[in-house]
Formats: sequence, structure tokens, C-alpha cells
Amino acid sequence: MVSEKMLELGRRRSVIRELFEYGRTRRAEIGEDRVFDFSLGNPSVPAPAVVGDTLAALLRETDPALLHGYTSAQGDARVREAIAAYVRQTYRAPADADRIYLTAGAAAALSIALRALLPDGGGDEVIAIAPYFPEYRVFTENAGGRLVPVPARAGDFGIDIPGLLAAVTPRTRAVIINSPNNPTGAVLSVSDAAALGEALRSASERVGHPIYLLADEPYRELVYDGVTVPWLPLYYENTLVLYSFSKSLSLPGERIGYVLVHPDAAAAEEVYAAILGAGRSLGYVCAPALFQYMIPACLGKTSDLQVYRENRDRLYTALTRYGYDCVRPEGAFYLFVRALEPDAVAFSERAKKRELLLVPSDDFGYPGYVRIAYCVSPQMVERALPAFCALAEDYRKGS
Amino acid sequence: MVSEKMLELGRRRSVIRELFEYGRTRRAEIGEDRVFDFSLGNPSVPAPAVVGDTLAALLRETDPALLHGYTSAQGDARVREAIAAYVRQTYRAPADADRIYLTAGAAAALSIALRALLPDGGGDEVIAIAPYFPEYRVFTENAGGRLVPVPARAGDFGIDIPGLLAAVTPRTRAVIINSPNNPTGAVLSVSDAAALGEALRSASERVGHPIYLLADEPYRELVYDGVTVPWLPLYYENTLVLYSFSKSLSLPGERIGYVLVHPDAAAAEEVYAAILGAGRSLGYVCAPALFQYMIPACLGKTSDLQVYRENRDRLYTALTRYGYDCVRPEGAFYLFVRALEPDAVAFSERAKKRELLLVPSDDFGYPGYVRIAYCVSPQMVERALPAFCALAEDYRKGS
Repeated sequence: MVSEKMLELGRRRSVIRELFEYGRTRRAEIGEDRVFDFSLGNPSVPAPAVVGDTLAALLRETDPALLHGYTSAQGDARVREAIAAYVRQTYRAPADADRIYLTAGAAAALSIALRALLPDGGGDEVIAIAPYFPEYRVFTENAGGRLVPVPARAGDFGIDIPGLLAAVTPRTRAVIINSPNNPTGAVLSVSDAAALGEALRSASERVGHPIYLLADEPYRELVYDGVTVPWLPLYYENTLVLYSFSKSLSLPGERIGYVLVHPDAAAAEEVYAAILGAGRSLGYVCAPALFQYMIPACLGKTSDLQVYRENRDRLYTALTRYGYDCVRPEGAFYLFVRALEPDAVAFSERAKKRELLLVPSDDFGYPGYVRIAYCVSPQMVERALPAFCALAEDYRKGS
Repeated sequence: MVSEKMLELGRRRSVIRELFEYGRTRRAEIGEDRVFDFSLGNPSVPAPAVVGDTLAALLRETDPALLHGYTSAQGDARVREAIAAYVRQTYRAPADADRIYLTAGAAAALSIALRALLPDGGGDEVIAIAPYFPEYRVFTENAGGRLVPVPARAGDFGIDIPGLLAAVTPRTRAVIINSPNNPTGAVLSVSDAAALGEALRSASERVGHPIYLLADEPYRELVYDGVTVPWLPLYYENTLVLYSFSKSLSLPGERIGYVLVHPDAAAAEEVYAAILGAGRSLGYVCAPALFQYMIPACLGKTSDLQVYRENRDRLYTALTRYGYDCVRPEGAFYLFVRALEPDAVAFSERAKKRELLLVPSDDFGYPGYVRIAYCVSPQMVERALPAFCALAEDYRKGS
């Protein structure tokens, strides 16, 4: 009766969403304070004041017919110009308003970019570094492609360059990099960025066509301890930056972000035109107008990151002390922790008995771990620590 | 290098958008008041006060982390409940919050519904009544299907039921109906709705599977002279209503609407699940949150329609007097006028010389006409009338 693929996607939901809905039900059953829901990357820190102030001023001062009217399909020209100027100034990198396309968030940006880049016949390949955001597979398959996972470097979850190069075939069209990373919190180092650019340049030459780098960067500003996130177009010209204001400004429900095509990318004009076509084809008419006009006042601004930093420190220190094996995150708001038994799904189920909602890593293409989304209140972290401790005890006792 | 199909879609743009961009350039050249731009269905009447007031109150009174956070993928539960209650009360028709899916406007609703309904193998058929909104073809093809146009009934642009039945094949999966209609302004009559339901019921039986009716209804409230728009689920149970607040509330840039699956549709649960899957697959995470929360206060409200009615009357009367052949629109804000030469593109080009921007009907699958979007200021209509008159004169003189 219907598309079997869509039915399966709709029925299965993502594991993350499933756990989030379970948490909602469970809280209603036993009380808000007794469930420790680390499932969803939904920022707990409110948007900075500039967001509300800007929206209120736009509503007060702009003719509603203009404010809420259609913008150009690629987004309002002045907004794109503001983003380009910000990128030029902040990263000392080229940017062109006519190579920026505003989207309904990073998910739309990815879905559109992949549909634009993959040839129509199907069967082309997109490399992602595992663990990877599960929807990469969904969007790649929707564009007729096949996701090829390459495991991250053991130890620090950086990019295994030799492994990446070994995975490149003549069907490889794109590589997705997510830094700061969901789910590990790892940030690509400058030396890794340079090595990645070099590797992709040689691989493109080998296969005889450009391999595009999709830099999925919704967590760009969410970094700690003065870590710098390399601007990947500086290291590789065939780069598309996919940005979202969801996490930096705590606006995930509003769906606002952009695709930036490096002005010197191979066939940049064709890539940009195909992005316009893909957006049109998938039913995106324009990014939400009010939130487009909010952007110029909010570029480079973030919600207060202090809470995330404190949560990270508190959780990392405590969990390590309880005997968990975790990588110290440099950015984003996720802690990637080795499960206390080989089967992460079984571990996640056992954690549920302690009211801890942790996402098993299997759908991230990297079994044996759980993801802890610590974009929650410090009070919840504090309340959850005894449960983490008890869970580790359960395993020690073999109970 | 990129998808050829997407490149073509991005390069060609829609004829409507092309003309709109031309108008923008032309206005800069010769002055705002001297171009008569009837190209785009971008409402000129501002949103009703309740929209701005509701948005401002939400911004003032709601915790920003909740207001701008993710909603469930299908949309906030209370908002869906409010829509269901409104439908039950207004149309005396069944509606279920769990069969409503909030979308980023009607374009997203169409794109998602078609992806959900068409089987994965490709090659299935979707019938549209010509003239039809050109993006129907784009969304159908994106879902792997083929658009089959059936010309509207001559004279009143109603549905030619025998023609429709003759076009049904075993590959037919859906029929798209747009009432009030873009581009003709025709509204489906109650007797046509009943005949359509009967016809689709018998056709479904003949081909051995349900043929779904997609009721694309962004203009539902934009009707004149007390005309009633039939609620199609009352006449045919296998109906999906695709609604947008773009036109009724003058919010086309904000992208907010919904899909409503008739609770008694065949395989309603599967259809709804496949819609969830399709939304996910295309990169729609949730409909913009702030505009979701605006909905309950705005259901059934509209912008002031007086201007559109006046424009319709003024244009219809004057153009008829100048010798143009047009159908009197009962709804929406479009006037469909026969071109004064067989080639509508040539006619549209000639109209441009009089600074009249009229969309040729070829991409609507119905050559020989132009569409006049009269959602403009009455002053522009007034200023444009001499140009329409002179254009008719040009043709009469054979110059």
C-alpha cells in the first residue's frame, strides 16, 4: 500500500527518539526528578537574550507581510551577505553570499547536499567516520547512495587517515566529518585537518573526480578549554560546511542553518545550483523567514556554555572514578562511554533499571558504547551520579 | 560531478520564481510603481493581529528552552489535538491528533506524502488535474513516480470525471486535487466532490488497491461570495488533507502546515507511519516550533480578504471589458486568462513590454493561458489596468 522503506523508517524511529519517548512516559509514572534522561541532544540552557530580543524587535518593527513573506529560495540576500562577512572575518577564509544556501537546520542541509552531490543512477558511496550520527545513513540512502563507515582512530576518536584512504573507491563521492563530534565529543585537530585535506586531494586525483568533504558542524562553537575547531575549507577546497544554529543558540525546534560551498570548490557553481534543485525537489521552499532575519544579530553568539562545561567535568570525573572508561570530550555535549558488557543494547536496558536513559552506540556504527547527552541541568547530573555508581556496582558484583 | 536532475531543477528554477526575480531587477531599474508584478502568490495583506500578538506572547511568557526545543517528529501533541478538535467542530468530520503530522508548509506536506505513498520500485502514477501547480511534477518525480495530467472540464475548470477515470491504471496510487485552485481560482462543487468520491471508490476497486486522494488546500479559507469548500474526507475516506497556513494567515515564508490522514482511510496507521518515515528520510526533523505553538490561537482566522475580493472584482470586470477571456474565480487569488495568441510564453513576453508580469500556463500543463496572481495592492491593480488595456489594443491592431 505504501513505501516499505518509509514505513520501516517511520515504524522503527530512531533509537534516540524511542528512548526519549520512553523517558517522557517514565517521568509521568514515577516523577520528573527520578528519571535520568540523557537520551536527546536538546539543549537545556536557554537561548541567549539576543535571540528573544531580536525576534521581539523584528515582530514589533517590521511590516508583517515582508517579515513573514517568501524569501528567495536560497535565503534572504542580506542574511547570506552577513554570514559570508562573518566567515571571512572569523576564519580569514573566502566566503561568497552566492554560495550560501539557508536551510531548515543541519538535517535538511545534509539531506539536500547529499541529494545534490550523488549522481542519479544510485549506488555511489559516502564515507562516514564511525561512530557517526545515525541519520547519515538515512539521508545517504534517500539520495540513492550507500554509507561506508570507517572506524575512528582507536584511543582518541580522531580520523584514521590510512583507513579512510583504503575505503575510497571510484564510487566515493563524499566524506562526512562531524567535529566537534556527536557522539564522542572529539574535535578534529589542526594536524588531522591538514592530513585529511592532503588525503582527499590525493584520493580525488586517484579516482578521477572530486571527493567532496561535508563538514557537519552544528557544534562548532560548543568547545571547552580554549580548543580551536579548524575551518575545514582552509584545508581542503572541495568542502561544504553544513551549519545549524540549533545547538549554539539552543533553537533545535526552529530548524535554521545553512550550507556554505567553498567558492573555490570544483564545479562550485554546479554544486550550488544542484543544491537549489535538491532543496526544491525535497519540498523546501525557503528556510523559516523570521529565523532567517534573526541570524545577523546572532552570528557568533552562544547560549551560556558554563553549564555544559560543569556537567562534562562532573560526569567525566565521577564516571572515571566509578570505573567507567570514557574519552574526555573537548566539545559538543556528549560523553561516549564503554558499556560494561559487550552488548551495549543489553547494557542500556540494564541502565534503564536504574532509571538511566543512555543511547546504545550500535546505530552509530560502533558497538559496545553508550552515548550520554549531558545538555541537562546540573541538578539532574548530581542526582544521577549514585545511579551510575550503583550500575557499576551491579556489574562488579556480577548480579 | 553532481546529480544531473538536481542541477537541471536548480538551473531552470520555476518559471514563477524566474519572473519574480526579473520583476525585482526591473523595479530597481525603472521604479517600484512602474512594474506590474502579478507573478508570485506572496500575500500582500499582512497577517492578522492575532499572529503577531500570539508570537509576542509566546516569546514573552514561555521558557525559551521549551519554546524553541525539539518537538515530537509528528508535531507537538497539544497543537495536533487543537487541530483535530477544530476539524471535528468545523467540518463535522472525524479527525484524530494521532493521524495529523505537522509540516514545513504544503510543499513539504506534498513531498512527504508522495514519498510515503508511492512504492519504492518507482514507475507508479499520480494523477493531477491540469492546470496544476508545477511542483506536483517535481515532488512526484522525486518520489519515483510519474505525473499523469488530466485536463480540467472545459468551461468551468471543474473535474472531468470520465477523463479522470479513463486515466486510472493499475499503477495509479494517488490523485491530487487543489481546491480552491491555483491557477484557476475554481472551487470544487459539492456535487463534483460527491462524484469524485464515487469515482475513486469504484476505480480503487477496479485496480485492486486504494487510490489515495491528496487534497492540497492552502487556499481553503480564501473564498468569495459565501462559496463553501467541501471537506473532501467526508466524500472519500482514503483522503489526506494537505494544509498550509501560508495563504490564510499571510505566512508563506514561515513554512507551517500539516498532513491530516482520514482516520478511516485504508491502512491509515501504515500511511501515517510511512509519512513519519518520509519526513525523517527527507531531513524534516520537526515543523518550526514557535509557529507550531502559534497555531491553536489562529485556527480558522484569516488575513483581511477584502483586498483580494476587490482586486478580483476590479480585474475580472475590467479585463472582460477589454476583451480578455477569463473564468471568474471563486477562491484563491489567481485569475486565469486566455492568452491573446496561441503561444502563452510569447504572450507573456509581450506583456512584459507593457511591464505586466504574467506567468504563462505551460508549466501548469495547460498551454494558452496566463496566471495573474492578484494578491497585490489595489493601487497596483489600478495602475496596471491601462497596461492591460493597451496590451489588448496591441493585439487588436495586429501590431
